[in-house]
Amino acid sequence: MCGIVGIVSTSNVNQSLYDALTVLQHRGQDAAGIVTFQDERFFLRKDNGLVRDVFRTRHMRRLVGNVGIGHVRYPTAGSSSSSEAQPFYVNSPYGITLAHNGNLTNAEDLSNDLFRTDLRHINTNSDSEVLLNVFAHELQKLGKLDPTKEEIFSAVRAVHKRCRGAYAVIAMITGYGIVGFRDPNGIRPACYGVRKTEDGEEYMIASESVALSAAGFKLVRDIAPGEAVYIETDGTLYAQQCAEDPHLYPCVFEHVYFARPDSIIDQVSVYKARLRMGETLAEKVLRERPDHDIDVVMPIPDTSRTSAMQMAHRLGVKFREGFIKNRYIGRTFIMPGQKMRKKSVRQKLNPIDLEFRGKNVMLVDDSIVRGTTCKEIVQMARDAGARKVYFASAAPPVRYPNVYGIDMPSVNELIAHDRSVDEIGQLIGADWLLYQDLEDLITCVSDVNPDIEGWECSVFTGNYITGDVNAAYLNKLEAARNDENRFQAGGGDSSDSSDNGIIDLYNDED
Amino acid sequence: MCGIVGIVSTSNVNQSLYDALTVLQHRGQDAAGIVTFQDERFFLRKDNGLVRDVFRTRHMRRLVGNVGIGHVRYPTAGSSSSSEAQPFYVNSPYGITLAHNGNLTNAEDLSNDLFRTDLRHINTNSDSEVLLNVFAHELQKLGKLDPTKEEIFSAVRAVHKRCRGAYAVIAMITGYGIVGFRDPNGIRPACYGVRKTEDGEEYMIASESVALSAAGFKLVRDIAPGEAVYIETDGTLYAQQCAEDPHLYPCVFEHVYFARPDSIIDQVSVYKARLRMGETLAEKVLRERPDHDIDVVMPIPDTSRTSAMQMAHRLGVKFREGFIKNRYIGRTFIMPGQKMRKKSVRQKLNPIDLEFRGKNVMLVDDSIVRGTTCKEIVQMARDAGARKVYFASAAPPVRYPNVYGIDMPSVNELIAHDRSVDEIGQLIGADWLLYQDLEDLITCVSDVNPDIEGWECSVFTGNYITGDVNAAYLNKLEAARNDENRFQAGGGDSSDSSDNGIIDLYNDED
Amino acid sequence: MCGIVGIVSTSNVNQSLYDALTVLQHRGQDAAGIVTFQDERFFLRKDNGLVRDVFRTRHMRRLVGNVGIGHVRYPTAGSSSSSEAQPFYVNSPYGITLAHNGNLTNAEDLSNDLFRTDLRHINTNSDSEVLLNVFAHELQKLGKLDPTKEEIFSAVRAVHKRCRGAYAVIAMITGYGIVGFRDPNGIRPACYGVRKTEDGEEYMIASESVALSAAGFKLVRDIAPGEAVYIETDGTLYAQQCAEDPHLYPCVFEHVYFARPDSIIDQVSVYKARLRMGETLAEKVLRERPDHDIDVVMPIPDTSRTSAMQMAHRLGVKFREGFIKNRYIGRTFIMPGQKMRKKSVRQKLNPIDLEFRGKNVMLVDDSIVRGTTCKEIVQMARDAGARKVYFASAAPPVRYPNVYGIDMPSVNELIAHDRSVDEIGQLIGADWLLYQDLEDLITCVSDVNPDIEGWECSVFTGNYITGDVNAAYLNKLEAARNDENRFQAGGGDSSDSSDNGIIDLYNDED
Amino acid sequence: MCGIVGIVSTSNVNQSLYDALTVLQHRGQDAAGIVTFQDERFFLRKDNGLVRDVFRTRHMRRLVGNVGIGHVRYPTAGSSSSSEAQPFYVNSPYGITLAHNGNLTNAEDLSNDLFRTDLRHINTNSDSEVLLNVFAHELQKLGKLDPTKEEIFSAVRAVHKRCRGAYAVIAMITGYGIVGFRDPNGIRPACYGVRKTEDGEEYMIASESVALSAAGFKLVRDIAPGEAVYIETDGTLYAQQCAEDPHLYPCVFEHVYFARPDSIIDQVSVYKARLRMGETLAEKVLRERPDHDIDVVMPIPDTSRTSAMQMAHRLGVKFREGFIKNRYIGRTFIMPGQKMRKKSVRQKLNPIDLEFRGKNVMLVDDSIVRGTTCKEIVQMARDAGARKVYFASAAPPVRYPNVYGIDMPSVNELIAHDRSVDEIGQLIGADWLLYQDLEDLITCVSDVNPDIEGWECSVFTGNYITGDVNAAYLNKLEAARNDENRFQAGGGDSSDSSDNGIIDLYNDED
Repeated sequence: MCGIVGIVSTSNVNQSLYDALTVLQHRGQDAAGIVTFQDERFFLRKDNGLVRDVFRTRHMRRLVGNVGIGHVRYPTAGSSSSSEAQPFYVNSPYGITLAHNGNLTNAEDLSNDLFRTDLRHINTNSDSEVLLNVFAHELQKLGKLDPTKEEIFSAVRAVHKRCRGAYAVIAMITGYGIVGFRDPNGIRPACYGVRKTEDGEEYMIASESVALSAAGFKLVRDIAPGEAVYIETDGTLYAQQCAEDPHLYPCVFEHVYFARPDSIIDQVSVYKARLRMGETLAEKVLRERPDHDIDVVMPIPDTSRTSAMQMAHRLGVKFREGFIKNRYIGRTFIMPGQKMRKKSVRQKLNPIDLEFRGKNVMLVDDSIVRGTTCKEIVQMARDAGARKVYFASAAPPVRYPNVYGIDMPSVNELIAHDRSVDEIGQLIGADWLLYQDLEDLITCVSDVNPDIEGWECSVFTGNYITGDVNAAYLNKLEAARNDENRFQAGGGDSSDSSDNGIIDLYNDED
Repeated sequence: MCGIVGIVSTSNVNQSLYDALTVLQHRGQDAAGIVTFQDERFFLRKDNGLVRDVFRTRHMRRLVGNVGIGHVRYPTAGSSSSSEAQPFYVNSPYGITLAHNGNLTNAEDLSNDLFRTDLRHINTNSDSEVLLNVFAHELQKLGKLDPTKEEIFSAVRAVHKRCRGAYAVIAMITGYGIVGFRDPNGIRPACYGVRKTEDGEEYMIASESVALSAAGFKLVRDIAPGEAVYIETDGTLYAQQCAEDPHLYPCVFEHVYFARPDSIIDQVSVYKARLRMGETLAEKVLRERPDHDIDVVMPIPDTSRTSAMQMAHRLGVKFREGFIKNRYIGRTFIMPGQKMRKKSVRQKLNPIDLEFRGKNVMLVDDSIVRGTTCKEIVQMARDAGARKVYFASAAPPVRYPNVYGIDMPSVNELIAHDRSVDEIGQLIGADWLLYQDLEDLITCVSDVNPDIEGWECSVFTGNYITGDVNAAYLNKLEAARNDENRFQAGGGDSSDSSDNGIIDLYNDED
Repeated sequence: MCGIVGIVSTSNVNQSLYDALTVLQHRGQDAAGIVTFQDERFFLRKDNGLVRDVFRTRHMRRLVGNVGIGHVRYPTAGSSSSSEAQPFYVNSPYGITLAHNGNLTNAEDLSNDLFRTDLRHINTNSDSEVLLNVFAHELQKLGKLDPTKEEIFSAVRAVHKRCRGAYAVIAMITGYGIVGFRDPNGIRPACYGVRKTEDGEEYMIASESVALSAAGFKLVRDIAPGEAVYIETDGTLYAQQCAEDPHLYPCVFEHVYFARPDSIIDQVSVYKARLRMGETLAEKVLRERPDHDIDVVMPIPDTSRTSAMQMAHRLGVKFREGFIKNRYIGRTFIMPGQKMRKKSVRQKLNPIDLEFRGKNVMLVDDSIVRGTTCKEIVQMARDAGARKVYFASAAPPVRYPNVYGIDMPSVNELIAHDRSVDEIGQLIGADWLLYQDLEDLITCVSDVNPDIEGWECSVFTGNYITGDVNAAYLNKLEAARNDENRFQAGGGDSSDSSDNGIIDLYNDED
Repeated sequence: MCGIVGIVSTSNVNQSLYDALTVLQHRGQDAAGIVTFQDERFFLRKDNGLVRDVFRTRHMRRLVGNVGIGHVRYPTAGSSSSSEAQPFYVNSPYGITLAHNGNLTNAEDLSNDLFRTDLRHINTNSDSEVLLNVFAHELQKLGKLDPTKEEIFSAVRAVHKRCRGAYAVIAMITGYGIVGFRDPNGIRPACYGVRKTEDGEEYMIASESVALSAAGFKLVRDIAPGEAVYIETDGTLYAQQCAEDPHLYPCVFEHVYFARPDSIIDQVSVYKARLRMGETLAEKVLRERPDHDIDVVMPIPDTSRTSAMQMAHRLGVKFREGFIKNRYIGRTFIMPGQKMRKKSVRQKLNPIDLEFRGKNVMLVDDSIVRGTTCKEIVQMARDAGARKVYFASAAPPVRYPNVYGIDMPSVNELIAHDRSVDEIGQLIGADWLLYQDLEDLITCVSDVNPDIEGWECSVFTGNYITGDVNAAYLNKLEAARNDENRFQAGGGDSSDSSDNGIIDLYNDED
């Protein structure tokens, strides 16, 4: 997953882009980048690292101009080098830079086409570079010196025709403006807002609404699936539907784990959705075990706090923070002649024993991916003196790979793959394992926006909305992942070996 | 405030010290240092910055040895340069390094004495360097080639005689062992624990018990006020009371704000203390306004979460997380020709409007220091649609400076200084301002340990336990602070302009 | 001035390119860059700084591949940012990278054409980026998936038609090979050589022959003016004349100052040329003052050493090194409240007084540009006790700007501009000022290679070989330079304010 | 070898110390340090690296004060870590910092004494730290609050009594002044000078006179062997002989190789001495082969240039620079799976073939240490076409280790150890090998100063002036060197593996 932002302003945008990226940092801690333009020159700074580490005063001073875009990158398979930090750039036509959130499922075919037919060299494994070149090529084919909004939209239309998968995109055409668009299924989020100043209206496009509010922009609306929004440098905004048959099938995992709770995506409040996930979990408890003996409900901080709180409330049992998250996490150094020690979850979470002693505790996490962290946590609870340890996942079992931009481990590493809930419960050592039902999850996120025709739930169902994901594709993906032998989890249990020693067990949103 | 740690082990201690310091990082994010020894050489690495930034692989490789001590520094007035990172070092006698948490109130006199009588040069403004030289001088006077435990204790005894103020100290005598001691009032915390290995018993001394558990040590007990614990390099431990008239008057602010909730200090659980602070706050509400109209209780994350949760529970009203803390906070860059923009609390906290709309909200913070953040938060709550905004402080009004190691702003900047609660309430714009009563606070922390004779509460009362703090001292302190014109708050509302752009509104403990 | 290199090898080229760049470092100390390719990906590292500072182990490890090119940059007006370090890159067609030595005199027109007609965005002020895009566009127009040698040569032919000025170029077409070419007047040097290995023949193209010999390549020959040499990745080499009316008019300043003495350029030995410059200077002395009273001849180290030695020899007077060059030169730091002190030549040169005392000394420098250093040196000689101070310049008076890649100060700063030799002599305070005659200089460099039709001598004559340099162009250049108000001299007296504090009075060749 | 400097000024000394260190950089390129004091605080910056890399603006801003000392370090066996950069510091008594050039032959005994008797911990392997602690201890024993000049001198007297070996020292007593002294044999050089300003007289003490002149100080005189010069912060200077039986036996290697030619040491001009070395070499040629067939004399740049020039002059044959030194030398990177390639002299020197072709060349170097470089150079000359290759060393055969501060390889690595000149000549492959006779060398340096009773020539003779160097000591040294298995040559052929990639074949003085 990644975060994207673009601004057309009446004054320098570097600080606002920077602020927006820090607010979107939970969507990607791996790399960050900003590009601006002024006087027909663009200015770019991108590197691996957190926003606060990538941008120093010397960089910010160079990032002049009233128009710009930014990106934070979540590592996906094969994209760990700093040369794959975004935004990407091509100089022909016009000079175009682009920031992308999502994943193209036909990137390899496109890459070959680009080289063979369009003579465009792709220098990375990033599908975002492919997407940029598709867009650039389509714009170049039109061959105009001054691209009009019609040409921009026409190029987006061509992108929709050629590209498959999930993509929310913000591109900057040097000297002209920025364009934002979403794939025809609206899998990845994007919205835009306005800020009124004495010098006129300013616009921001961003992955999540929190980025708007943090910078003083007012949310106007989400970009519709397939739609493109083009804002010229003078602040004139145009919007047009560019897909032939658009549908709104947003990714449900944004609500489960990825997005900040204070964001509103496709008119659905993430916070409210999570409250409801707690409520439906509670109801499932009451259905399954009306005479349950839960003494206390505890979140695995931080994502599941909202759900856990509401679950406790609905059950009428105590809500307590039994695990303290260590916010300052360091590295394990490999000394000469030493093997890498496994980075234990114990370095990230510390139990408050007195909350566990003699109690039946219900632990709540947002989801269970590989289950290894989960298992350690259950054991920690026991060691702290819990009588019984129950475990609830606010999401259904994760059984299938994600192909739309969330990096997940190999299918065989998914604990729920080809296993029953009982088997999983035994593996993690819980006295009771409770998964959210998929229908309940859908209910939690669905009452507000009638435009939502359905949800992208493939990690739970194995049904991929774009229709082009078959066994061959998945096998290839699997092979690539095994090659990589690396993994950055999008869910409840992640493992990390990043250089800068910043290890975050969970999304840091609340 | 600072964090200190020392280990005598049977294998290399660098990683364990590093891990302990990350767990103690909440006690000081300004600088970090580790010193170890092996084969009569000590190895030192210290610098400004977070633990994860100060120690790189190249440093860790040099930090060899089975014995070592570490330090994380909270900035106090006048100690911002990296040359004042700890541990400090003197080469005579033996080579002694020392890490200190607290503040000496007679540092200036001692510094003069050291130079005039002992010819010892003090090169910084740090009272820790003074303390080290006092200790070193007292040990040198005994003049033995091999210092025995009696001589170590004798030197600590002399330190107690010469030094005034608060100090928890861990010193390493190169080639011999480490010694930990607390001032005769036990103002600053220190405890020790043991870890059994195949090669024998290993000991750790640390500021807080969480550092022990994170590294797999079992808490043995707190060091008593005035007591010294000396652990030789072979793992033999000796303890002796070294003060003439020791009393236990621990700092109550550790429980209010500073310590991690999962720590146990002088046998008191910080977490439990905070739960009780919520309970007594609730009771005060019920006493003062039995028919209150509070709809929801919300913490100002993160410190006050525990209290707020229990307050809500006791009041029987909803507990909600209305403010989302932005964990990734960036800097405001000063561009040429631009003035520094005020770093607003809005960059650190974001409200979830739907939790506020039309409701009477009770906001709970751990304490109120300058009140500026407080005021902004109240306004944010109103902007988010709250009908009435109430504000509760888990600590009583902070009216006096701290002279025992917590950096506070100038007295005149304390919002509660010379003001009534009503006046403060008006200033921050709250519809109702509720402070914890001091007696209640004392009750919250006091039921467990009969050895605690009282609490160091000077910021609330102006009574300084060490007896040597008079108006002249306070005026001098005030003048120095004004000179510095800088401030790093220890409490609920801090402001920061550190280089590395890490701005933490609150202590990051849970 | 800059240095360029390209290699097609049978094993990794990174170390060889690095070594070649260090040998060419005298041609540019401002920035350095290397790009290689392997498996259809290119790998780039470039930054401001010396070769030894720009390339660290981590960079070298990424620069994999058997084919690559490199560049060292001499600062020219307007090109100081690291984003203008070379090689430059475009991704369409094929992915092309390019390194350039020289200067295009019609860069502005080309830049406009590129944008208007070709929709190619130029993001820097560098004419090298323009040249790359011209080449890329011409290649793209041919539109082939696999570019043949004919198409490469055809594109070079088109470059010659569109570009004016001086340029020696090495470009890499990702996946195919490297091409080197010189402008139709051969103003800037380029040669190529071969190295035989067990795995086949390897080729290197470079600015100077020393780069070849240092890496074990044997000089084959110079690239002819207008000619292109194309080496495919498998080591097959093709050469073709691509200009319509080529002539060989090499830059005489390479021999005066720029090139290393151990290089052979267009079959002329730089070392031998400099020896002869000393000889002709001596003959001029004997012509002008047959009864001269010179006691000793001294070089201003390092460039003029060769000429001075031979001058002394021919005159039959002693040759002595009266000035010791300080090889380790530091910076002048500007402390708060302090003004920049002028960096005096006295920090770079130190006289050995006993060589001056009571003697008539003839000082020899390669050239005189602004004359300020010159004046200081004359004064130093007097202060050291010289009776009379004579000064000889191995080059004629520098009276006109250079438009072919040597950065010179504004015309009005040239001491010889609009001044007679007598006036100049008075200004620098010499008792006798002796300039090389232009005919003599031409003689010194001309006896070997009949292909050389003439020399690019515009800084002495004001006649610009490319025919397109008129008053309007020069005025524009002058205005730009005044705007910049910065200057990096190519000749005898330079001034420096570079960040990295490396100040070199002269070209460091021996 | 190292370079030392100290200044007592009327304004900030940081820039002057920095400038002096750059001028002394040829004495040590391994590490650099400066310490200043102001208002009873000292300010220190030291690290591995060249002066220009160690001191950045941020460091210089902190180095405030009118008094300070500096050091550049030449690596000696066992002192490569940055923690052994100088100046060293002890805080008791007064705070003393010290910079040292030379080597103590009884450092190990002293170190033991210091710990056992004085309880002073020595944390490095550096004898300079030992020397500092001896001085500090002796000063502390006197126990005065304000040290008078008598006490300073008394402490120096005690140092002379306890220390053996070679040492030129500058120490700063924080708050009082600086003291410079030389060992009783005057092996290492030190001199001082004065600069008159409007605010009074300022003094500098330095290793070489060039450091004085570069900063505008006028040489007053050398410090006599055993003498101490004490300059108080107000600029009052005192001098006193502190040794019981001083003699002047300066190190002859300073003239052969180490010192800058423009320095005057103990009243002997290094430049003149080197001229004479060329003259005596020529006379030896004429003695040994009156009908020699030498066509041309060539220096191995840079040190031997002066001697070679005069040798040619005296012989009446041509002097030519046949080898061009590559001033920008890079590293050899070790790529994964690759072995370290030997750094060849060919990367440092490049022959100009036409100067060699068919000629009998006499190559001149300052000295021959291991002979490996020598051998390579002879081969290069042959490869370049020389008919016969003769080789002259301006110094006699180096047969014994140096124990006075010049780092030499293990005795067994010295090519001249236990070998005749003929054998050596065969090993290096020269057609004729010519060594300077020791008596001639002594003559070259001896005509000026009657105070010089003799020369420290142990590397040629095996006679050690301090009388305490016996076989046991040398064996120990040898063992230590073999352990280290590292080597930094002081002479004609060095090898380097420093991190920063700066490889200098020779001392860069002229």
